Amino acid sequence: MTNCIIITIGDELLIGQVVDTNSSWIGTELNKIGIDVLRRIAVGDNKEEIIYALNEALKAASIVLITGGLGPTKDDITKSTLAEYFHCGLVTNHDVLLDIQELFKGVNRPIVDSNFRQADIPEACIAIRNAVGTAPGMWFNKDEKVIVSMPGVPFEMKEMMNKYVLPKLKERFTHENIEHFTVMTFGVGESFLADKIKVWENALPQNIKLAYLPNLSQVRLRLTGHGVDSIILKQQIQEQVNQLLRLINTSVFAQTDISMEEAIGILLKSKNKTIATAESCTGGYIAHKLTSLAGSSRWYRGSVVAYHNDVKSEILNVEEATLKEFGAVSEQTVQQMAKTARRLLKSDYAIAVSGIAGPDGGTSEKPVGMVWIAVADDRRIYTRQFHFRRTRLQNIELATLNALFMLYKVLQGTYDE
Amino acid sequence: MTNCIIITIGDELLIGQVVDTNSSWIGTELNKIGIDVLRRIAVGDNKEEIIYALNEALKAASIVLITGGLGPTKDDITKSTLAEYFHCGLVTNHDVLLDIQELFKGVNRPIVDSNFRQADIPEACIAIRNAVGTAPGMWFNKDEKVIVSMPGVPFEMKEMMNKYVLPKLKERFTHENIEHFTVMTFGVGESFLADKIKVWENALPQNIKLAYLPNLSQVRLRLTGHGVDSIILKQQIQEQVNQLLRLINTSVFAQTDISMEEAIGILLKSKNKTIATAESCTGGYIAHKLTSLAGSSRWYRGSVVAYHNDVKSEILNVEEATLKEFGAVSEQTVQQMAKTARRLLKSDYAIAVSGIAGPDGGTSEKPVGMVWIAVADDRRIYTRQFHFRRTRLQNIELATLNALFMLYKVLQGTYDE
Repeated sequence: MTNCIIITIGDELLIGQVVDTNSSWIGTELNKIGIDVLRRIAVGDNKEEIIYALNEALKAASIVLITGGLGPTKDDITKSTLAEYFHCGLVTNHDVLLDIQELFKGVNRPIVDSNFRQADIPEACIAIRNAVGTAPGMWFNKDEKVIVSMPGVPFEMKEMMNKYVLPKLKERFTHENIEHFTVMTFGVGESFLADKIKVWENALPQNIKLAYLPNLSQVRLRLTGHGVDSIILKQQIQEQVNQLLRLINTSVFAQTDISMEEAIGILLKSKNKTIATAESCTGGYIAHKLTSLAGSSRWYRGSVVAYHNDVKSEILNVEEATLKEFGAVSEQTVQQMAKTARRLLKSDYAIAVSGIAGPDGGTSEKPVGMVWIAVADDRRIYTRQFHFRRTRLQNIELATLNALFMLYKVLQGTYDE
Repeated sequence: MTNCIIITIGDELLIGQVVDTNSSWIGTELNKIGIDVLRRIAVGDNKEEIIYALNEALKAASIVLITGGLGPTKDDITKSTLAEYFHCGLVTNHDVLLDIQELFKGVNRPIVDSNFRQADIPEACIAIRNAVGTAPGMWFNKDEKVIVSMPGVPFEMKEMMNKYVLPKLKERFTHENIEHFTVMTFGVGESFLADKIKVWENALPQNIKLAYLPNLSQVRLRLTGHGVDSIILKQQIQEQVNQLLRLINTSVFAQTDISMEEAIGILLKSKNKTIATAESCTGGYIAHKLTSLAGSSRWYRGSVVAYHNDVKSEILNVEEATLKEFGAVSEQTVQQMAKTARRLLKSDYAIAVSGIAGPDGGTSEKPVGMVWIAVADDRRIYTRQFHFRRTRLQNIELATLNALFMLYKVLQGTYDE
């Protein structure tokens, strides 16, 4: 399989000023066209380091994609370094010059000399025009290999990749098909999951690989297959997925790479139902997760964040007697919270959560991490107690994910008590 | 200056399923103790590539920090590769074994064999205990150099870095005093801020450097000083900070590296006052930010997330006529929301937000990104209109930060209309 090394250039990457999101985007896009990323390397705006990275990359890969260091300021030296590397001078590219003049038309500031100099590119390269910025990309052929330099600004890089670089690379290097399939699981630890599917995993055909991508209580299982015929490959992966699903069915919330809230949004939309929340220890985080999704106003009604007990009793009708006898963190309290939220916020379903997120506030009877969750529908209220043993933020996250998973199961009609 | 190379390991980094946030965090933290990141390299779960990366890193740097590939599953091979690299076997570390058993106590699932095997580590290393996960870290000394391997899960890696790795590295490699001072600003863009403090910045003494760390509407200004005498250095930095504060005073919300919600929590606690929220487009995100803080139950009362207009009118008493005449995104609506929230949730202050987060739902009169914010105290209601021009999530974040900054200014008595 053709492989690629990504080089990202910029001091800001090394001192942690910027999180590099370009590389993962590039990795995803290359994978889709059957090009493997072998390695990624990030270096500063430093000539020796850039040349070192180029030499190393060309030893191991057929394609080298470079981002960053193409700005008009003094500290950006990628272009001059590339010219030196390819033993050539800089020449003005007139198409690029016209692009830059076009871009500045109607912009209310003068074009400075350094902007025009962005049209000067190494003689040895083919210019890649930039429709959304001033720095052109550069395509170099060296022996049978390709080196491409692009701006580090994500939307400029993506525009160039989509319009020019990816189609050209596909045409030149892709001779095999690659297919991915992702299964999203919840509530089962990575090692326990691995144990459960061990026999199946060991019997996977040579051309299909499995990766575990854990994140708190979630594990993404990703199957990647390589093959000559796309249809046969897809069938082959689907057969493996079917076997896998039989083994872990109760833990799966999606058969594509989406979040739990997205899976819930899809279910609610398809059923034409709505949801509301009543949150104590999760403090609005469930509401936030759900409303992060575009279009959630179609199925999300609202929330009462009842942080203080007054709010639980006065707005959510939890009786003083209940709070006194069973406490704010109790089955009785979350039942009442869910029931009232559903009625008050006029929704088909309601989630209620009450617990002790920590680090303080725990007792021996109700320790930090103890959480009660309720999910109400039009017929009944499902409840469950949890004990999380993490930091405050993780306890909040875990309570939120477990509440959403309970709702998902109830929505699906597969809730198991 | 001592330098470091960061190696991140994991196929998920190369195919782009995960964005590497570890490296930038590590870069920031190393910088604070006077260690430079020379280069970063990301490789897959692949023995040859891991060994290649290690060899290359040790050629150029004194410190090699590795994250990832330490999970209990088959595809994680960092540990066995390190054992091979250091020509040693794996031995069971009994402290680590106890940690793992402790971690699984009370967790409602069986410990499988692969969990116990996480206590087996290369003989040549010092174990770094993991308080929040099962994979231990590993510290290797080689000639005068240090190689540290840590889990890829961000909170496990950070815990290990903060508790063990950073202090040890500082002790061993930092021979000068380094002092930091951070000033947190809000609402002024990086380039505008730079222009405002240009003269001061250019006159900074040689041993004090300024870094701009922008993040949406916030810019962290970090002064880093190097010097022989710690007391003199601190005084020298404080003098510079005093000059800086005179230039940008109205944009500052903290003189230490804390978030806006932390600054607000400190103010509320010191004044013995409480806050409640009424959120539409921010969908519970303000509540979440405030309740993320330990101890927030002392000053946070609760929220009504009024996503649907019914909730605005029925719970928050926004009159149907107001919604009809001015709309849900209007000054009148947020005024009423803030007023009712303050009364209903019995708080001293209330924030209300209503807007169009996007990507849909905008009109020519009220485009995506238009947001009204109100802050109520016992005497009056402050309101302001905003226009954000970002993605949905960024618009939610910006509305939240601006609401919190308004509250901060009102609390401080410096709100400027």
